[in-house]
Amino acid sequence: MTPKVGIIMGSDSDLPVMKEAAKVLEEFGVEYEITIVSAHRTPERMYEYAKTARERGVEVIIAGAGGAAHLPGMTASITTLPVIGVPVKSKALNGLDSLLSIVQMPSGVPVATVAINNAKNAALLALRILSIKYPEIAEKLEKYREEMRKTVEEKAKKLEKIGWAKYLGEGLNG
Amino acid sequence: MTPKVGIIMGSDSDLPVMKEAAKVLEEFGVEYEITIVSAHRTPERMYEYAKTARERGVEVIIAGAGGAAHLPGMTASITTLPVIGVPVKSKALNGLDSLLSIVQMPSGVPVATVAINNAKNAALLALRILSIKYPEIAEKLEKYREEMRKTVEEKAKKLEKIGWAKYLGEGLNG
Amino acid sequence: MTPKVGIIMGSDSDLPVMKEAAKVLEEFGVEYEITIVSAHRTPERMYEYAKTARERGVEVIIAGAGGAAHLPGMTASITTLPVIGVPVKSKALNGLDSLLSIVQMPSGVPVATVAINNAKNAALLALRILSIKYPEIAEKLEKYREEMRKTVEEKAKKLEKIGWAKYLGEGLNG
Amino acid sequence: MTPKVGIIMGSDSDLPVMKEAAKVLEEFGVEYEITIVSAHRTPERMYEYAKTARERGVEVIIAGAGGAAHLPGMTASITTLPVIGVPVKSKALNGLDSLLSIVQMPSGVPVATVAINNAKNAALLALRILSIKYPEIAEKLEKYREEMRKTVEEKAKKLEKIGWAKYLGEGLNG
Amino acid sequence: MTPKVGIIMGSDSDLPVMKEAAKVLEEFGVEYEITIVSAHRTPERMYEYAKTARERGVEVIIAGAGGAAHLPGMTASITTLPVIGVPVKSKALNGLDSLLSIVQMPSGVPVATVAINNAKNAALLALRILSIKYPEIAEKLEKYREEMRKTVEEKAKKLEKIGWAKYLGEGLNG
Amino acid sequence: MTPKVGIIMGSDSDLPVMKEAAKVLEEFGVEYEITIVSAHRTPERMYEYAKTARERGVEVIIAGAGGAAHLPGMTASITTLPVIGVPVKSKALNGLDSLLSIVQMPSGVPVATVAINNAKNAALLALRILSIKYPEIAEKLEKYREEMRKTVEEKAKKLEKIGWAKYLGEGLNG
Amino acid sequence: MTPKVGIIMGSDSDLPVMKEAAKVLEEFGVEYEITIVSAHRTPERMYEYAKTARERGVEVIIAGAGGAAHLPGMTASITTLPVIGVPVKSKALNGLDSLLSIVQMPSGVPVATVAINNAKNAALLALRILSIKYPEIAEKLEKYREEMRKTVEEKAKKLEKIGWAKYLGEGLNG
Amino acid sequence: MTPKVGIIMGSDSDLPVMKEAAKVLEEFGVEYEITIVSAHRTPERMYEYAKTARERGVEVIIAGAGGAAHLPGMTASITTLPVIGVPVKSKALNGLDSLLSIVQMPSGVPVATVAINNAKNAALLALRILSIKYPEIAEKLEKYREEMRKTVEEKAKKLEKIGWAKYLGEGLNG
Repeated sequence: MTPKVGIIMGSDSDLPVMKEAAKVLEEFGVEYEITIVSAHRTPERMYEYAKTARERGVEVIIAGAGGAAHLPGMTASITTLPVIGVPVKSKALNGLDSLLSIVQMPSGVPVATVAINNAKNAALLALRILSIKYPEIAEKLEKYREEMRKTVEEKAKKLEKIGWAKYLGEGLNG
Repeated sequence: MTPKVGIIMGSDSDLPVMKEAAKVLEEFGVEYEITIVSAHRTPERMYEYAKTARERGVEVIIAGAGGAAHLPGMTASITTLPVIGVPVKSKALNGLDSLLSIVQMPSGVPVATVAINNAKNAALLALRILSIKYPEIAEKLEKYREEMRKTVEEKAKKLEKIGWAKYLGEGLNG
Repeated sequence: MTPKVGIIMGSDSDLPVMKEAAKVLEEFGVEYEITIVSAHRTPERMYEYAKTARERGVEVIIAGAGGAAHLPGMTASITTLPVIGVPVKSKALNGLDSLLSIVQMPSGVPVATVAINNAKNAALLALRILSIKYPEIAEKLEKYREEMRKTVEEKAKKLEKIGWAKYLGEGLNG
Repeated sequence: MTPKVGIIMGSDSDLPVMKEAAKVLEEFGVEYEITIVSAHRTPERMYEYAKTARERGVEVIIAGAGGAAHLPGMTASITTLPVIGVPVKSKALNGLDSLLSIVQMPSGVPVATVAINNAKNAALLALRILSIKYPEIAEKLEKYREEMRKTVEEKAKKLEKIGWAKYLGEGLNG
Repeated sequence: MTPKVGIIMGSDSDLPVMKEAAKVLEEFGVEYEITIVSAHRTPERMYEYAKTARERGVEVIIAGAGGAAHLPGMTASITTLPVIGVPVKSKALNGLDSLLSIVQMPSGVPVATVAINNAKNAALLALRILSIKYPEIAEKLEKYREEMRKTVEEKAKKLEKIGWAKYLGEGLNG
Repeated sequence: MTPKVGIIMGSDSDLPVMKEAAKVLEEFGVEYEITIVSAHRTPERMYEYAKTARERGVEVIIAGAGGAAHLPGMTASITTLPVIGVPVKSKALNGLDSLLSIVQMPSGVPVATVAINNAKNAALLALRILSIKYPEIAEKLEKYREEMRKTVEEKAKKLEKIGWAKYLGEGLNG
Repeated sequence: MTPKVGIIMGSDSDLPVMKEAAKVLEEFGVEYEITIVSAHRTPERMYEYAKTARERGVEVIIAGAGGAAHLPGMTASITTLPVIGVPVKSKALNGLDSLLSIVQMPSGVPVATVAINNAKNAALLALRILSIKYPEIAEKLEKYREEMRKTVEEKAKKLEKIGWAKYLGEGLNG
Repeated sequence: MTPKVGIIMGSDSDLPVMKEAAKVLEEFGVEYEITIVSAHRTPERMYEYAKTARERGVEVIIAGAGGAAHLPGMTASITTLPVIGVPVKSKALNGLDSLLSIVQMPSGVPVATVAINNAKNAALLALRILSIKYPEIAEKLEKYREEMRKTVEEKAKKLEKIGWAKYLGEGLNG
């Protein structure tokens, strides 16, 4: 099957963050491809990847990068597919540099930016995008939303019942 | 015709920024609706808007807001459609508060954030999203990309030819 | 007894921070309820909670959330009770995003924001608010203030007497 | 009649910002007093003001200050009344310094901080606080909320009807 | 003559800033070329420009861009020439986004970043770089340094002599 | 008479800010000298100035600079006199760069930093320093403090009497 | 002997930072007193401390505090002695809040601010201030400066001789 | 052989960061010298170092410093050689202070600033600068670029082949 989502990242050091996107897509049963494409170390490869993505059947690209994070924006400048940018937390500036480098794109070339290190949300956004075309994904998203709701409500019920101290395992008479 | 894109904003004071999204969609011939929905002043209306958007045929929502900008995230928490957030520049903090309030969403509910005040890019992102379903939009995006390229190249040629001083109208011997 | 204070938080991961509010209220003998209400994962529950709070006898709401922290502001948009917001420290941006998302509310809907992670102060603020109606709480706050003063003065006296080195247990001849 | 709310500010240069609080209180028919109390230039006066506020019948204090804004926090350290802090926008740092100086109070002494320059919200927060004791203020707040809702909905209806261009007065065929 | 320095910028809106680099090079009699190359709107042109720069005789590239400023970094990823980045002041974030997008490059691909909007310093840096190969440029830089010194000393002498008030034209008895 | 205070600045463009220091010293009748000393454009002059300051009778140095503001810190590294740094507001970053460049000095070489653009406070700090040696300056500072108090109290009285609207000249029924 | 320097801090949790000031003063043989004075928890004590400092013979006050750090500024508003502020690193915002709360004082009341957590420099600044009155302290500061220079030069010589690898103990053939 | 590159740093505590520059130069076989030069603790030594650098044959200076980092800018003010600044990560502000203190130089004296803690890139920038004069270094840089590309491509191939889970060693059925 052709992958609908392409996950790319600037370095394999971003993989522990970006794998969360892969996990969500697997959970939803959506085909994806995942690889390393560095804007700075493999500019030709990036160009090739972005240029051919749509014709290869990819419908959304998720691109993660940190620091002066150029991969999402450059990819978006070469393809007309929706590109989702994941600002990877950087060592010195905690990802503020990554965030601004990705989100502050000039008019003409948008990048759909999600929260710092939140590759999971990048995948969920990709699924929302796909859902406008694939009704079964829309349904699954609705179920996912429902489950999130239930999980919170169960936790809430538990907390209300046993109190914060027991909930945290801190004592017996919460 | 049913609008494919819903443009909402927290206040009519955001309209001078958000109209840029409308303009782009008109230019591309994509039907849209535009209205005011305040997360804080009309929470019920926001709930209603987001809850019914998909069934009304809307496929992408563009939501603009400033300061403690909750509209994009709250809308995304009620619908499973893709929601694009436009951080509107705020008076004191220049939109940094708007940006962080929109982009730093918790896991489970993503908002596709674009640059501060860049409603134009929000529309272009909406078009990229629609392009995975409507091939004619993909074609138009490709043309748009081509025109951007040409415009830059023409300006470049002119600058190279007449020099920076003449280009800026500052002198005769640039 | 009806709880006078409602403590809510966006996720049970906020509980280690928010329990400090509960502790203070217990210390002052003020009835409270504590539960999980997620603006993004349980918007309907949040609406219900805020809508019914005043009629259920709640007089102050303390709401904690992190990142794009919408819970305090959204709660304040649904109820007319005073809502105290606790910005929970976030992983990447240390709570600056939480703080701005909570404090920078638009005109019409205020949130009483306290310091990042300072749920203890949220409770003390709730008590100050209640003190305008319940004189016994005003008295207890005065005593609390007095005790804080004494504690500092005792520490000061000790430091003045034994010197910084002994005080820190670092040496014998401070 | 005894004023229920005390509005103080560090300098008369803060008055154009702080008067918005006075206006709202007048609109709600709530008695207030307004004066200048500088933490740095009149520390004794500040002490006196805060020390006697409760016995004089004041129930909420609104304190505005800019830069290294110490007035709200110092007032809160002397009284046990609820103190609302308004960070006034500063020349160089746009009020970020004012905000942090007011909101980041240490444990024990809370300040209910509102958005930068948002004295209007400070007054609305004071009214929410008073509403737990005075049912007529609760009713008025409910009406105020209703009117905000209506205003937004009317603007929304107008925008939906005439389109953004006419709404902005920019053209005839919006 | 072959240009030794290539000045490029992402948009002609950057020209009022970037022309300062051209002016300095003209003053020093160093041949340069100046044109528009947009990383996002003309990625192929950027690739071509950077790829051929060294063989065309260019020895230093000065690249200016604002917001999510990718031009300097992407150029540096394609050529091995020294690339100087000028962060152009952006509307919302005053160039902090431009600065971080340019300076925070990952290991392997450096950009020599100068101050926000300081294209003049970019040219002076290019001249310092060229000076290691062209002794006449080193000499001119030494003279330039000397003149800067003299200008400051003359101003200092004047200020010392006539006083600040006269210097500022504010009065007669400074 | 020998000047007790030396006021230096990196450029005559800083003079409109730094003259406020001169004014205060004149008001207090304290002899001062004022001149331009650029750390970057006249490093030798800076060295000479700082090296000879104490022997020339100067007792406090006030140094103002903006951007990468090195003058106060470098002066402090050459003399052992107290050096007061005034961060001058910069164009792009509003003086945050100036402030951090001046205040974040490494262990061993302190700079007494005041608020951005607050040369007036630099002079008042210089006077406080001199006051430990010259009792007449201590007396004058006490009087100055008293006058500040009175000015605030008079304004307060006026505001209390005529109300905010009249105070601001906005209406008749404040 | 009367202490010339008063070291105060808002909480004994600041002592591990502030003791560095005490150490330097001991090293220089300058008498000091050290105690806890909380602006927020012991406002009366703070007032008393600052009011009587000069008459008790104190000549410089060093005040350390974190978060919404009001102690240095409030102390400076009550005494006319020079007050040195040490911004103590805070948990969430790393001391940026402490720094701005201390340095951004309004006109009329200066605080001599040093770097975050740099109590050592606060003491050295106090010594520079005292040196204008006590020549023996000026001499000691000159020696201290000389020793700093020597220490650096010895380290430099060692590094030049054995290379970075051996210097760091990382290898044998540096 | 004469060193072409001079690596200096403000303190030996910067050596673990700055050694990365040395390593790269060794890898490229380019002669360098490395030593400690403190702007604040050895201003005369800094002056001497910078003043004589060019005549001693040095062609590029790499200067690392943290906090109020004055070494790169002051060195650049004394020599006309290209000076590369490495902002060393600081304890409280994570190197944002170092970055701004180095990059925001005033017109006339540029510093080629690289990313926080990225001494490796400083060396690569030095090599790019030298490459305009020494063709063999240009060749080596081209090879280096090629190797970076290959390394990324090999990692990419591996990730594509075995999947993210195996790549991370997290499971068997990636």
